[in-house]
Formats: sequence, structure tokens, C-alpha cells
Amino acid sequence: MFELNPTLERDSVLIGYLPLCQVRLINDRQYPWFILVPQRNGISEIYQLVEEDRSMLMAESCLLSETLHDAFSADKLNIAAIGNKVTQLHYHHIVRFEGDASWPEPVWGKLPAIAYSQEELASILQKVRSLLSDDLTLPDDDSELYY
Amino acid sequence: MFELNPTLERDSVLIGYLPLCQVRLINDRQYPWFILVPQRNGISEIYQLVEEDRSMLMAESCLLSETLHDAFSADKLNIAAIGNKVTQLHYHHIVRFEGDASWPEPVWGKLPAIAYSQEELASILQKVRSLLSDDLTLPDDDSELYY
Repeated sequence: MFELNPTLERDSVLIGYLPLCQVRLINDRQYPWFILVPQRNGISEIYQLVEEDRSMLMAESCLLSETLHDAFSADKLNIAAIGNKVTQLHYHHIVRFEGDASWPEPVWGKLPAIAYSQEELASILQKVRSLLSDDLTLPDDDSELYY
Repeated sequence: MFELNPTLERDSVLIGYLPLCQVRLINDRQYPWFILVPQRNGISEIYQLVEEDRSMLMAESCLLSETLHDAFSADKLNIAAIGNKVTQLHYHHIVRFEGDASWPEPVWGKLPAIAYSQEELASILQKVRSLLSDDLTLPDDDSELYY
């Protein structure tokens, strides 16, 4: 049974499941900021994934990247596996815009998160679920929509 | 003919060539910091690579990651494609240690680079070339060793 790190759980909302990864939204309205979390215990680095999972991660990352880039008209995507504080592998996918709150610097460690309102959260979850609907399995429990 | 972005060329030293990527060392002695630069023009995002190149990038990234993790006894690797300033796709592979100059924050935009001495540079280039010797094609011109 896959166990999600509690900090990742606290700071993000489950959008749904791709075959390998949980797709989660970081609860910070300053940027459309998503993480892919491979559902494998005990992995902190991409290279530690078995070959099949590596391929799946690349495929899921590219699917999410292209979807986000087009849907949000991104100026740039920032894709990263850092994990100095939370070592459970989580792969950031952040939509960046020229002139956003931290542009052109990376977002990590810059500004405190600003939570979405309930309406904003429902809207962005619906948008991304709809965009990924061909590939995404939705959570059984919709309660996270309104937490 | 692949054209390397001039900023990347200025800030890093060519270690050698994997089938898809140039392997380069960022000239900052504060961290063992490498970039993989896919030798494809006009690409700024990983998802823009064709399927075969995506697979190659994953393979080369994992080869470099595992090699660096073991050889440097890394506490963590930071892997990232950011590119807000230099959009030509370059994939960071940074060896992090607890207590290094920016730990536990990411390294980008934190501290000005401190160049390696000529001896340090020769030593780290030799080390990484030796570690990757089964897969790496060395540059024709060794002059970068002593620039």
C-alpha cells in the first residue's frame, strides 16, 4: 500500500491518478503548480525507479506538461525533482508566466503559499480533471474538492 | 548542426557527449553541478522532444544521476529543467550535501558562482569522464580542460 508523505498531503490536493502517479495540485494560488508522485514506497530519486516506471514517469510528465502548457498558455514550465526537505519522490510541474510573483526566479523558497479560495480550488480541479479525463482516474472520495 | 546557447557555453565546461546530450559541468565549485543539454535545436521543454529522444533523455539522466549519487556520496540529487532565463532545454543534475552552501534550499538564484581553480577543474573533469567512460564520447579538443 502506497503511503503519501504527510507534508505533501497537507500542502496539496489530489486531482486524480495516472497509472504510476498521483497528480496533485499545490495549494498556492500564485502559480498553477502541480506535482506527480509515483506511487512507490521508498523512492527518493528518479533513477531508483525500475525501467518500466521510469518510462511511465516520462510519459505522464510529458502528458501533464503539454496539457498544462497549452491550457494555461504558459510562458515556461519548470519541471523538477528536488526533495531536500521532503525526500519522497515528487516531480514538480509549475506553470510560469513572465511577470508572475517570482519571475524569472524559481519558485521554491521564495514566497509563502497563498491558499486558493474554495471556488478557485473547485474551478482549477475541474479544469485539470477535464483536460486529463482520457487518462485520469478520479478519487473515490470527492471530499477534497471542498476541504 | 546543433547550436549551444552562448550563456550555457560561458557558464559551463564540456565534459563529453552521450548519444543525445552534451554533458557539461557548471563552473561553480560550491556544488558538483552538471547539465545535460539535448543536442536538438529549438527545444525549450522536455515534452517537445520526440518519443525516442524522451527515452534517451531519461536513460542518460538516470545514468548520470546514479553515477553522481554514488561517486560523490550525495545526500540528495536536485534534477530540474527550469529555463526561465535561458530557454534552450538544459536539465540540471546537482549533487547536494546536508550543510552545503544553500542547503536545504535549491541552488538557483541563491549565491554567485565561485569558479573552480584550474587544478580543481582538471580533477573533477577527469573524475567524471572516468566514471562515464563506458558511455561518453570525449571532446576532440581538450582545450576546455585548461581554459
